[in-house]
Amino acid sequence: MENFRNETDLLGTLQVPANAYYGVQTQRAIDNFKISGQKLSSYSHFIAALGMVKKAAAKTNYELGLLEENLYHKIAETCDELIAGKLHDQFPIDMIQGGAGTSVNMNANEVIANRVLEKLGKEKGDYQFCSPNDHINLSQSTNDAYPTSIKIALLNMNLELVEKLKKIVLAFRTKGNEFAGVIKMGRTQLQDAVPMTLGQEFEAFAENLEEDISKLNANANLFVEINMGATAIGTGLNAPVGYATLCAKNLAQISGFPIISAKNLVEATPDTGSYVIYSSAMKRLAVKLSKICNDLRLLSSGPRAGLFEINLPPMQPGSSIMPGKVNPVIPEVVNQVCYKVIGNDLTVTFAAEAGQLQLNVMEPVLSHSIMESNIFLGNAIDTLREKCVNGITANKENCLNMVKHSIGIVTALNPYIGYKNSTAIAKEALETGKSVYDLVLEKGILSQEKLDHILDPENMLKPHQF
Amino acid sequence: MENFRNETDLLGTLQVPANAYYGVQTQRAIDNFKISGQKLSSYSHFIAALGMVKKAAAKTNYELGLLEENLYHKIAETCDELIAGKLHDQFPIDMIQGGAGTSVNMNANEVIANRVLEKLGKEKGDYQFCSPNDHINLSQSTNDAYPTSIKIALLNMNLELVEKLKKIVLAFRTKGNEFAGVIKMGRTQLQDAVPMTLGQEFEAFAENLEEDISKLNANANLFVEINMGATAIGTGLNAPVGYATLCAKNLAQISGFPIISAKNLVEATPDTGSYVIYSSAMKRLAVKLSKICNDLRLLSSGPRAGLFEINLPPMQPGSSIMPGKVNPVIPEVVNQVCYKVIGNDLTVTFAAEAGQLQLNVMEPVLSHSIMESNIFLGNAIDTLREKCVNGITANKENCLNMVKHSIGIVTALNPYIGYKNSTAIAKEALETGKSVYDLVLEKGILSQEKLDHILDPENMLKPHQF
Amino acid sequence: MENFRNETDLLGTLQVPANAYYGVQTQRAIDNFKISGQKLSSYSHFIAALGMVKKAAAKTNYELGLLEENLYHKIAETCDELIAGKLHDQFPIDMIQGGAGTSVNMNANEVIANRVLEKLGKEKGDYQFCSPNDHINLSQSTNDAYPTSIKIALLNMNLELVEKLKKIVLAFRTKGNEFAGVIKMGRTQLQDAVPMTLGQEFEAFAENLEEDISKLNANANLFVEINMGATAIGTGLNAPVGYATLCAKNLAQISGFPIISAKNLVEATPDTGSYVIYSSAMKRLAVKLSKICNDLRLLSSGPRAGLFEINLPPMQPGSSIMPGKVNPVIPEVVNQVCYKVIGNDLTVTFAAEAGQLQLNVMEPVLSHSIMESNIFLGNAIDTLREKCVNGITANKENCLNMVKHSIGIVTALNPYIGYKNSTAIAKEALETGKSVYDLVLEKGILSQEKLDHILDPENMLKPHQF
Amino acid sequence: MENFRNETDLLGTLQVPANAYYGVQTQRAIDNFKISGQKLSSYSHFIAALGMVKKAAAKTNYELGLLEENLYHKIAETCDELIAGKLHDQFPIDMIQGGAGTSVNMNANEVIANRVLEKLGKEKGDYQFCSPNDHINLSQSTNDAYPTSIKIALLNMNLELVEKLKKIVLAFRTKGNEFAGVIKMGRTQLQDAVPMTLGQEFEAFAENLEEDISKLNANANLFVEINMGATAIGTGLNAPVGYATLCAKNLAQISGFPIISAKNLVEATPDTGSYVIYSSAMKRLAVKLSKICNDLRLLSSGPRAGLFEINLPPMQPGSSIMPGKVNPVIPEVVNQVCYKVIGNDLTVTFAAEAGQLQLNVMEPVLSHSIMESNIFLGNAIDTLREKCVNGITANKENCLNMVKHSIGIVTALNPYIGYKNSTAIAKEALETGKSVYDLVLEKGILSQEKLDHILDPENMLKPHQF
Repeated sequence: MENFRNETDLLGTLQVPANAYYGVQTQRAIDNFKISGQKLSSYSHFIAALGMVKKAAAKTNYELGLLEENLYHKIAETCDELIAGKLHDQFPIDMIQGGAGTSVNMNANEVIANRVLEKLGKEKGDYQFCSPNDHINLSQSTNDAYPTSIKIALLNMNLELVEKLKKIVLAFRTKGNEFAGVIKMGRTQLQDAVPMTLGQEFEAFAENLEEDISKLNANANLFVEINMGATAIGTGLNAPVGYATLCAKNLAQISGFPIISAKNLVEATPDTGSYVIYSSAMKRLAVKLSKICNDLRLLSSGPRAGLFEINLPPMQPGSSIMPGKVNPVIPEVVNQVCYKVIGNDLTVTFAAEAGQLQLNVMEPVLSHSIMESNIFLGNAIDTLREKCVNGITANKENCLNMVKHSIGIVTALNPYIGYKNSTAIAKEALETGKSVYDLVLEKGILSQEKLDHILDPENMLKPHQF
Repeated sequence: MENFRNETDLLGTLQVPANAYYGVQTQRAIDNFKISGQKLSSYSHFIAALGMVKKAAAKTNYELGLLEENLYHKIAETCDELIAGKLHDQFPIDMIQGGAGTSVNMNANEVIANRVLEKLGKEKGDYQFCSPNDHINLSQSTNDAYPTSIKIALLNMNLELVEKLKKIVLAFRTKGNEFAGVIKMGRTQLQDAVPMTLGQEFEAFAENLEEDISKLNANANLFVEINMGATAIGTGLNAPVGYATLCAKNLAQISGFPIISAKNLVEATPDTGSYVIYSSAMKRLAVKLSKICNDLRLLSSGPRAGLFEINLPPMQPGSSIMPGKVNPVIPEVVNQVCYKVIGNDLTVTFAAEAGQLQLNVMEPVLSHSIMESNIFLGNAIDTLREKCVNGITANKENCLNMVKHSIGIVTALNPYIGYKNSTAIAKEALETGKSVYDLVLEKGILSQEKLDHILDPENMLKPHQF
Repeated sequence: MENFRNETDLLGTLQVPANAYYGVQTQRAIDNFKISGQKLSSYSHFIAALGMVKKAAAKTNYELGLLEENLYHKIAETCDELIAGKLHDQFPIDMIQGGAGTSVNMNANEVIANRVLEKLGKEKGDYQFCSPNDHINLSQSTNDAYPTSIKIALLNMNLELVEKLKKIVLAFRTKGNEFAGVIKMGRTQLQDAVPMTLGQEFEAFAENLEEDISKLNANANLFVEINMGATAIGTGLNAPVGYATLCAKNLAQISGFPIISAKNLVEATPDTGSYVIYSSAMKRLAVKLSKICNDLRLLSSGPRAGLFEINLPPMQPGSSIMPGKVNPVIPEVVNQVCYKVIGNDLTVTFAAEAGQLQLNVMEPVLSHSIMESNIFLGNAIDTLREKCVNGITANKENCLNMVKHSIGIVTALNPYIGYKNSTAIAKEALETGKSVYDLVLEKGILSQEKLDHILDPENMLKPHQF
Repeated sequence: MENFRNETDLLGTLQVPANAYYGVQTQRAIDNFKISGQKLSSYSHFIAALGMVKKAAAKTNYELGLLEENLYHKIAETCDELIAGKLHDQFPIDMIQGGAGTSVNMNANEVIANRVLEKLGKEKGDYQFCSPNDHINLSQSTNDAYPTSIKIALLNMNLELVEKLKKIVLAFRTKGNEFAGVIKMGRTQLQDAVPMTLGQEFEAFAENLEEDISKLNANANLFVEINMGATAIGTGLNAPVGYATLCAKNLAQISGFPIISAKNLVEATPDTGSYVIYSSAMKRLAVKLSKICNDLRLLSSGPRAGLFEINLPPMQPGSSIMPGKVNPVIPEVVNQVCYKVIGNDLTVTFAAEAGQLQLNVMEPVLSHSIMESNIFLGNAIDTLREKCVNGITANKENCLNMVKHSIGIVTALNPYIGYKNSTAIAKEALETGKSVYDLVLEKGILSQEKLDHILDPENMLKPHQF
């Protein structure tokens, strides 16, 4: 049988599970927000970040003489526990919530306060010795502590995403090298264009994604600018002079990121610009990944009635009715994650636009959407690399045959016979089914030797010396 | 220590937990798709719908002589178990997956087959007696069974959402009646306009949402058109003549919805138009709910430096720093859910557009997004009703005072003194701070009696008899 | 040298071109809103609708005794001129404007008033005889006349779009018949699936689009509900008793649509739900069109290194460098229009959500986006039909060859040899390059006669009698 | 009567207006793409950029010995004419077009060729002396020349947008200074929070927008990376060795931007990442502008039943029915432009995702959407500054009164009497209507002197020394 303790706040008294480290305000949030079923407790980077922020705040309060030493040390110890992954089950509130994050901030304040009370040998809820508001939240407001925690969490989550991105870039590059000798038709507008190598195609995938490493990092870097010391609306009411700068310095040390205090705290408090552009950077990555997955599915189409240039490793029987069918299920799931990321970016846009006056109250859904995108994207990228890219093989012969029979190689004749003559050859090839090679010889336009040289696929893969 | 059994498919042999009702293909899906952490097992309407579809398919096969009686009965029994909420923990696969739902379909096929085997006294995995493909999936493909299941699930989920919507419409209407006597300023473009009652305002909320009941139902009604019998691409290959129509009839009986077979199964198989427009209908509801929540937050702004026309019931202390502050946390969370629904609608749009040729492989994310929107919206609507609307009170005196001091009431003078004269009065009132009433008398434009009659707020709430 | 006349309003005196039928408020709008360069004057359906609404209002005022007969007749005559396409150059204001459409409404009021003055032999601007506000706008507000005009315009624009849609449905259907004998591989997940005919594929395009005819009409039908008589905020202040109903009746007669008065005018005034869902219906059409164009581009890919099942009529040389290249430029432009429609739908969503209290001030961008989508879509559909669909030809032989060499036909063996055996055949065919036909005979699984029957493509296009 | 000349291309012969500088391919584009009615001719930055690119290409060809001197000079002269704004009426094609920009590129090639022919004393269309393909397009493809031109155009368009942004930042900053002494209530979640100055609020607007100057520039800077020399698919086929680097150098000199050649041309050719993120940066600016305009509308709400803290300059009579009403029409139109920009960003996202294999054919709608957003945003920002921000005035007394009567000032007591006691005071103030000041004195919690000091609004605007 579960036991309860009573806790009281502005709205009255409420029962809280006796063993819970969280308190009355967390309990209210549990009761108020039954929305998504997605709990703060499973967002470990977020809880760790709350630990870092509360530790930095306590250290700053201690250094400015507002918090006595023993209490500071106990708070710091507890924050270290959160950072180390402990007590995360004490954050059972819904990620999508009203109140601009007050519930998240108070959840952290309460858990830390009660854990400190335990360390002090006091009863849970005996807040005269350590109060969620007066001690843990000292010199802070939800409006500074909450967004700062989100930013620290996102800085760490970005690091993880970028690591995964680096690995898949390497995987594509490796395939690029492996396929360097596979000559194939390049296609524009889905029509045969001119020859290239499959290696160039995969190298381009690598290059295309690699550019987003610096892009993600550059945009995540906006998160180092925080508003601790802003308190309610950025005026710093109730924070001591010097708090903002010192707290940023402490948080830099604790988090390992080059955290700085925003230049203008009244501006920084409601501003969600960094979220908007970081979400956009993830969207850009999603757009690229989706395009690449579309290409992989197209290039592996077939086996007999498609392009069939590459083979994706089979991951599951493809059909409940068509025997032997193997489908590109991994690129398909990545496409879908990309659509999710793009949808989340829209949610972020709406949430950001909805800020009013001195605060943006939509930060919970905003942070939830960005974190979801980060996690889904990371999982999708790892899945794509491990279960697809690494195992791709080329159908070299098929690729080469398509080049040999193509009309597009007529392009290489342009500099020698002009666009107009080339056009005539191309047209005749299309209508008669004859090859470009045969037609040129038949008409005596170029010598066979010259023609062999020009139409050697190898000579069509790069600029030439005339 | 866990035990395993071996199962084999096109790709080879794999270990499956010995006790699991699911089999090798489900196991592959578990391994392949570690994406969102959101499992099919928590979407009970979806699993129940799979039960209904598989039962209808089995019944049809039996009636057409393709399935022997005993096996049919065992399959039907097992499907009834799924419908009743049993065995749902046997669906541990990620909702976001590649393969166009093959994993979901095979998960159902495998669980049903193994449960039937158990009923037959056979070992799990001994598929010669009851095979996931040859018996449970008989005359079907993922490409018909999977979207049909989604549609049945959505029909039921829509019913639930509509029930919640009806309740909140009633709640707003009740408040509309309660506030019928509260006269207040109407506002257009955030500027004072002309008088109305708070009752009219809440009645308008009710009316506005009520229109979406029929809208949701009308669009959900597109889901009754299914493609069972289409098999792989709509040509019905391997389905017996008459299967499509009979299966629809059976599914209608089992599900209770007026299910019909699509007119053109080749068209119906890749078509996602019904999802697109149903998602749009939820988006429309979200847009309306969000607007209403914006209004509730605006009308309750204050208490001293805002409109302060209504009071929302306090649900939690509003601030970790500002004592006594109570925030509109419930409308805020509803706004955020609305942004999520709008974001999901974009995901649906992308997924729908990505269909190619004879199939849309993006159905998993499409159905996931629609179901998430449905669930979040339902939770948000219930929360808004219970924890906010029901407890709203009016600040009647404050509302009336704003009308009395307003300039906007000058509009009522138009028909008597013309737009041009009214404009002059309004301008002078604004510049001098005087009241419209005093200015009209001062200038001797109308008699006091006439003026009292015209400017009686009660007379400004509706069309008049000149 | 241009001459000017002076006109005066609440804000002071302004010069208006002497010959202009519009007046001071239109002039202010010209000066205030230099935004998009897209003028009301080029939206003829919109101006005609303003004419109908103003005529209906005048008729109602006359019938209720508020407007004297001669003036009413002159106003009605002038409105008929607008409806007939005259004076449209007198609407030079930007479609994207602030003020919730006040400028559009006043532009109409001023043009009509000055044209009436002219008919009366008075000077332009001599508003004592016919005033934009007191006569033309009598019993109205921008907040009822403006959205009502938008709705009438959209009803007519929808009719045009639906006509174009009907024509392209017919075009696809015609091709469906033409291609009824072209057997080809169906594809799911871009992998070879089972056979079908090209006729079935094109017939499915027709069917898919045809469903949107009723969908567009059903959603446009919401526009018949108008809020004339609402005046400023729906309370009907300054409108005479009976005005709303009578005006709706008159507008029905004038416009030819079954116009009715909204049940609740306070609700109807700020409500943008009909726009949201109509825009969604256009988005649904765009999603379908885009998918179809993607398919057309895919099916016509090649000529030598693609699917090459169909040929699109060449519309322009495809490349400035690759001679003889012909690209699918028409489907490409249609895709792009579809993306534009989807983007506009998001603009509509934002604008709808931004409504506040008794009005939605974002109606200008909302109507602009919907009208733009309507026009672009209509143009794109006509272009697609005339310049692409009508001229598509099939590569019949190529289509049939792909079927013959496919592995997917093994599916048809399922009912005879089981999923497991079929899988083994498929696997061996893929690995050895042999045909399914040869392998089955080689293994003596079925007699040649039976096999010929089963694998006859004709027999794979529909359900069968076992 | 108009005269025509005949021109011939791959598809046959067509009549072109005799006086037109454009030729057969432009004529085909005019006929093929009747979509948006928005012509290339009105995008002067785009045409100028085409001039720069063609000039750089010609110079490079000349320097590499592929083009003879006289012809080069004539081409360069003609390009200078385009850059100077001449001949822009010769670009009558629709901005939304198929063919991946081939029509735009050929339009430029044809106009330049015919103008050169004129300079050479030849007839228009006499392409043996100067051919659109063989001379003007020499060593190029649409696939390099077209996106490069878009990028140059966007670099210039970004400069203009940033200039406008700088001006409005200054305007907000000026108001920030002007309002430095206006004390008012800050609000979070629309509820009264703690005091601030109106100057701080406007300074925050300035700061918030100022951050986007560097953000826009940083993202526009991605456009300096071009793919000239890539030709059809990035392999450089038909371009001479060294062309890419030299052409970039020449274009840098001509355009004044630090243009460089992309590291990997096969990657760069289909890549639309720079467009995606630049569009996102504009979206971020739109989100911020929209939030600011929402705030301006909220702060100026009233005059009697709203916040009425500021006055926006009246720009037009606000209502056709409500005399004297003045509405915030300028912020309203800016909001709408912001929604348009957000919608365009979605169009860009769709277009970018639709790239396939070696090209993205959706570049026309992509560039059109970005350019439209740029132009609309620029116009909106100038309009907002000139017609709104510059004329804003403060209602100082009203602002101060709201602070004096507020409960939120109780927050300042926290550090002295604790969160719990402050909460009790706040609650009692709300329930009784008494002021915080009176209650504290009444209860003897603090001395009047101390209280006066703490509650002096001036002391609440920044961090304090305890």
